[in-house]
Amino acid sequence: MRVFLKVAYDGTTYHGWQYQNNQPTVEGELLKAIEQLVGEAVEIIGASRTDAGVHALGNIAVFDTNSSIPANKFSFALNNILPEDIKIVESKKVPNSFNPRFDVKNKTYEYRILNSQVMLPTHRLYSYNYYGKLDLEAMKKAAKYIEGEHDFTSLASVHAQVQSYVRTVFLCEVIQENNTIIIRVNGSGFLYNMVRIIAGTLLEVGRGKIKSDEVKNIIESKDRSKGGPTLPPQGLMLTEINY
Amino acid sequence: MRVFLKVAYDGTTYHGWQYQNNQPTVEGELLKAIEQLVGEAVEIIGASRTDAGVHALGNIAVFDTNSSIPANKFSFALNNILPEDIKIVESKKVPNSFNPRFDVKNKTYEYRILNSQVMLPTHRLYSYNYYGKLDLEAMKKAAKYIEGEHDFTSLASVHAQVQSYVRTVFLCEVIQENNTIIIRVNGSGFLYNMVRIIAGTLLEVGRGKIKSDEVKNIIESKDRSKGGPTLPPQGLMLTEINY
Repeated sequence: MRVFLKVAYDGTTYHGWQYQNNQPTVEGELLKAIEQLVGEAVEIIGASRTDAGVHALGNIAVFDTNSSIPANKFSFALNNILPEDIKIVESKKVPNSFNPRFDVKNKTYEYRILNSQVMLPTHRLYSYNYYGKLDLEAMKKAAKYIEGEHDFTSLASVHAQVQSYVRTVFLCEVIQENNTIIIRVNGSGFLYNMVRIIAGTLLEVGRGKIKSDEVKNIIESKDRSKGGPTLPPQGLMLTEINY
Repeated sequence: MRVFLKVAYDGTTYHGWQYQNNQPTVEGELLKAIEQLVGEAVEIIGASRTDAGVHALGNIAVFDTNSSIPANKFSFALNNILPEDIKIVESKKVPNSFNPRFDVKNKTYEYRILNSQVMLPTHRLYSYNYYGKLDLEAMKKAAKYIEGEHDFTSLASVHAQVQSYVRTVFLCEVIQENNTIIIRVNGSGFLYNMVRIIAGTLLEVGRGKIKSDEVKNIIESKDRSKGGPTLPPQGLMLTEINY
């Protein structure tokens, strides 16, 4: 059977999702725990290869097994083995044809900017700190230009190795919660570093370095050098994937 | 001069605020940093001796020094020395008569309960996890009985060594933010473990184990065994102290 896992993790101490031979990774910890439980080697297919330091509330993975453990019991059984910074939120049986990477309908990411003179210790692992006045209305206006189907070359890492830079962003919103500004993006798929660059570009808009309307031109230019900086990983959270 | 410090910290790795000879504490780290900076031994008076694992956005401390560093520059200078989990949010000169412990007008604490089947890794250091249905309206109603001037013997640790258990709670509110329930308490002062026991008692109300109206009787009984359990420290945050 194919077992579906919804995985939450604190990425602080991991070298990202993807298995590496000699570094702790989320996939590596999952593999160890699953293989200990089922007593056989397994392969994992993950939906999102999040970078080092990036967090998740709901990354998705599957593995195939002949184990007699019911699929919906894997969450409980694996949580007894996994470290505290990786937990299975849900497990269930899915058809063998289900592919968590290619069957995605949409994904949601959130990027948190703490707007504070000093990085608060209780926020340091889960947000990026920016001190200075931010024009929230300008950021909200700029976010609207990111929505829609676009070639996102300007807002993706030059190291993104893909055939097409066209993606569809269904929603890009800027929300204030106390002294934190949350940039929430929902889309069909994302290019390498795309959300962190969107956050960096909207931050430049908030600072007044880029005008809201300019974001339209930046996207149309298909020139990475026109977009804002890539903000650091710890502010990024993969919150949800829908199928 | 007397220097006032507003201190934020992540209490995860500390044995509480108060200096201990052979354990890492917040006061111990502050002492080390201040003495390195001013080149003389100092004494710190703190407003709240938070327990091991408890966090703060704004605990207050003072120290006296002959240093020529302007008082408002201490925040920046100390933040260069302090570890990432302790930061000075503000520093300023105050009168020598100012006592951060005895001059308090009111303090605010927040206790966070994550209402989730699985403790989410990114929430584990800053909340307590409870899985099960919670009656938020009952919790809000019960919270109103905690407001006012009462003898809080029922809702304080039996190890609180004080002459009087009478304290005034100005505000006790129960707020839902996504899957987190925040219990916010503002009062003139708090007894040992009082906020964690208030949170534990309101949690029992939410679970239906204690009726809202019963909280009035629990307080009047002055019997600690009638109150709810002491919830663990990591859910507690000292958010603000006013003078």
